Amino acid sequence: MNKTSIKAVYPGSFDPITRGHVDLIERAARIFDELVVLVAASSQKQALFSTEERLRLIKESLLHIKNVKIESYAGLTTDFMKRDKIQVLVRGLRQVEDFEYERSMAQYNSTLFPAAETIMLYSNPGLAFISSRGVKEVAKHSPTADELAKFVPLPVVNALLEKMKGT
Amino acid sequence: MNKTSIKAVYPGSFDPITRGHVDLIERAARIFDELVVLVAASSQKQALFSTEERLRLIKESLLHIKNVKIESYAGLTTDFMKRDKIQVLVRGLRQVEDFEYERSMAQYNSTLFPAAETIMLYSNPGLAFISSRGVKEVAKHSPTADELAKFVPLPVVNALLEKMKGT
Amino acid sequence: MNKTSIKAVYPGSFDPITRGHVDLIERAARIFDELVVLVAASSQKQALFSTEERLRLIKESLLHIKNVKIESYAGLTTDFMKRDKIQVLVRGLRQVEDFEYERSMAQYNSTLFPAAETIMLYSNPGLAFISSRGVKEVAKHSPTADELAKFVPLPVVNALLEKMKGT
Amino acid sequence: MNKTSIKAVYPGSFDPITRGHVDLIERAARIFDELVVLVAASSQKQALFSTEERLRLIKESLLHIKNVKIESYAGLTTDFMKRDKIQVLVRGLRQVEDFEYERSMAQYNSTLFPAAETIMLYSNPGLAFISSRGVKEVAKHSPTADELAKFVPLPVVNALLEKMKGT
Amino acid sequence: MNKTSIKAVYPGSFDPITRGHVDLIERAARIFDELVVLVAASSQKQALFSTEERLRLIKESLLHIKNVKIESYAGLTTDFMKRDKIQVLVRGLRQVEDFEYERSMAQYNSTLFPAAETIMLYSNPGLAFISSRGVKEVAKHSPTADELAKFVPLPVVNALLEKMKGT
Amino acid sequence: MNKTSIKAVYPGSFDPITRGHVDLIERAARIFDELVVLVAASSQKQALFSTEERLRLIKESLLHIKNVKIESYAGLTTDFMKRDKIQVLVRGLRQVEDFEYERSMAQYNSTLFPAAETIMLYSNPGLAFISSRGVKEVAKHSPTADELAKFVPLPVVNALLEKMKGT
Repeated sequence: MNKTSIKAVYPGSFDPITRGHVDLIERAARIFDELVVLVAASSQKQALFSTEERLRLIKESLLHIKNVKIESYAGLTTDFMKRDKIQVLVRGLRQVEDFEYERSMAQYNSTLFPAAETIMLYSNPGLAFISSRGVKEVAKHSPTADELAKFVPLPVVNALLEKMKGT
Repeated sequence: MNKTSIKAVYPGSFDPITRGHVDLIERAARIFDELVVLVAASSQKQALFSTEERLRLIKESLLHIKNVKIESYAGLTTDFMKRDKIQVLVRGLRQVEDFEYERSMAQYNSTLFPAAETIMLYSNPGLAFISSRGVKEVAKHSPTADELAKFVPLPVVNALLEKMKGT
Repeated sequence: MNKTSIKAVYPGSFDPITRGHVDLIERAARIFDELVVLVAASSQKQALFSTEERLRLIKESLLHIKNVKIESYAGLTTDFMKRDKIQVLVRGLRQVEDFEYERSMAQYNSTLFPAAETIMLYSNPGLAFISSRGVKEVAKHSPTADELAKFVPLPVVNALLEKMKGT
Repeated sequence: MNKTSIKAVYPGSFDPITRGHVDLIERAARIFDELVVLVAASSQKQALFSTEERLRLIKESLLHIKNVKIESYAGLTTDFMKRDKIQVLVRGLRQVEDFEYERSMAQYNSTLFPAAETIMLYSNPGLAFISSRGVKEVAKHSPTADELAKFVPLPVVNALLEKMKGT
Repeated sequence: MNKTSIKAVYPGSFDPITRGHVDLIERAARIFDELVVLVAASSQKQALFSTEERLRLIKESLLHIKNVKIESYAGLTTDFMKRDKIQVLVRGLRQVEDFEYERSMAQYNSTLFPAAETIMLYSNPGLAFISSRGVKEVAKHSPTADELAKFVPLPVVNALLEKMKGT
Repeated sequence: MNKTSIKAVYPGSFDPITRGHVDLIERAARIFDELVVLVAASSQKQALFSTEERLRLIKESLLHIKNVKIESYAGLTTDFMKRDKIQVLVRGLRQVEDFEYERSMAQYNSTLFPAAETIMLYSNPGLAFISSRGVKEVAKHSPTADELAKFVPLPVVNALLEKMKGT
């Protein structure tokens, strides 16, 4: 058997990347030959970190993973997949609430690009409660670096503390 | 990049295989290099079809898919995976109710075999309501072959009609 | 505007009918011109009350509702609907858990009888916890008649106490 | 039996009306004698389309349905129902997430107007993933008219493309 | 047995306090020796009532409960708990949707303060649909005082009517 | 303040006690002055372990907790609570699926004994997937003692291995 190598894309906002994201990327990268972490370069959403900052924080947090590429894209994920000939889209399931949102996203995507196949991975149970939004909420209330390090990789700890100084 | 080919296992009872199962197997077989459909050879559960019948019905329903192997196993799925060096386990998500059952199964499996990675695919929305149990419930009330054909592949339609004759 | 009168069917096991069922029937009977309460005459399920007993208890519990008919049927509900030219099927939603079971039932039914339309009513919040199964569980532990009357209509209180005497 | 004709109201934001809404309206209009599609004329929510635009798009999308009236209202839906003597309120269930939101809405409504009865219809499984919000999200990323036509009726396709030109 | 008295904290936004909150506080106050109702003094969220107004409305609504203290706090709830040596945090479960949000909050809290134990109480079924957000939505549409009194305690009825006059 | 000491009951089947149960009991025992672990002595359910065996396994698994009493009871939990003057009932929430089952149990209990207050604790995320039923399912497939020890306390490991020998 000699299939071409299997590429997958893991799209998200990553505002910022959390320890939950990192765990999921490590696991997806073990399954597929190549994994593209795709940052939604949306200017509309009020993000804490700019697209460039998010890309840099992801890069610094994933130095230990070889078969990962990090990119940003402003259009539909399915357009990116068509362009780069990627057919597998990976997403994490943190909680039941994600189930239906992700299912409808999967259906938008397979409607727009019938060859696209969405694959779900359950979050590690010890990390499933961590979300970018939750981390930003904690960050507002002057946590210590040690406290933040329980939720996000080290490069993000520093970026969050820096960001919060100004507020 | 030159990884070894990626094998996955899709375990289940398949009592009997439905059109939902077939759709999921087709999609998983497009992603992975080889897919093993693994029938749980459990004698405890009161099955309508014997393990042998179930294997035969699956085989007849999957003739159009090349990279599929059909097997049965009586032990823990993780023991089968260890034996056959398979690290990816595929399961379908039909409805929210499945979410937590499958999550706990995934955790039992990764506790018993830490290298195992469970991957979930959403059922096709038009087929998500079909379950083996539902089909057997319908079969009890003398449906026509046409009615059954909406839920199960043709070989199973005949097997169900045959089975129901005796009751 | 002069449509023909609108008939609806409310199918169930009613083993036994509860105060939750009665509330739902009262409300559905206010909406539709005629409501058929349809008892599943299934011999396979281990019921506490026979089909005849269940029919009698329903009848005695619904004396105050005029536009209700009570029947039993052994086949598919959709076959009953085709036979009696009923296009609306009413079901209650007690809890989120019911949502998906009822949705898949609705899809089986509209697959088998495309003209069938399933309509859901939320249970009264003060009665939503009551289920036939729960009532039978309570009944096993020698409750008083007053305690049972909180869950089931009076004719069922007596029938349950009678039934439990023998065990 | 000669009841007065049964009217129902289907309230919503419809910003914009989707193919999911149209399917639900078609089905509800087959059940009831008259169906009022009621647009929430709320100025507070940041809508993409004005109340007038939404009313026009609904009208153009429902030309094929006879017993439908389209109106807008700025107050409580229950006040509209009291004024127009409507007792049945119809809502769609797209996903489990809707279940509890709709249940609490039903309870607000029956608290404010005890004669009001809320009736739920399950979305068509092939359309359940479509929401006005999702459509607007897709519309932001320059989709083609063909792509939009999978989610919304034709009048809305054009209105969305027009609206997006300016951004 | 002679343990020190058990203190618990019930944190929330209370914008404004509802009849659901009051019921939960009454029940928690019967279980624990002392209950602190803790208002999140967050300036970021767009609240209808100021922190001072919210504190006053809570105070006026809880005059009948002895062992309750009312406070506001701007930091992490766990920091408040550390400062005041409180180990039990009480929260209400109104609906399934709350289940996962509250679980992740509980995990953030036990990560930040391992001695903290979160305890959940189910809302009274007749009050579970009431939320501060829902009440504010109703208040926008000129309800009567009698209508508001079904959802909030009397001091809040007046405050809402006053607040709405200006809009 | 000088309240009498607060007693709580933690009822269940415990067939057999798992590491998830033990964690929950440890946490509840830190909150309340006395905790009664109450084994449902139901003869109807097909249990793997007899009531006596279950009591012994619980006892051996909880030797390290002081303020715990272990009892069995054949009637309604609320009758036990009335008899022993216990007003707090503790239950664990492993997953969303438990939410509604436990809520309806809480409502049965407060209907039968209005003074009863049910309190829920979230399972430890690393143990939430473990259920007695899941453990028994694993045990059927000849696991090693080390594998079982990940799910149940040591006394239960041995009892399960012993029990399985005979099958």
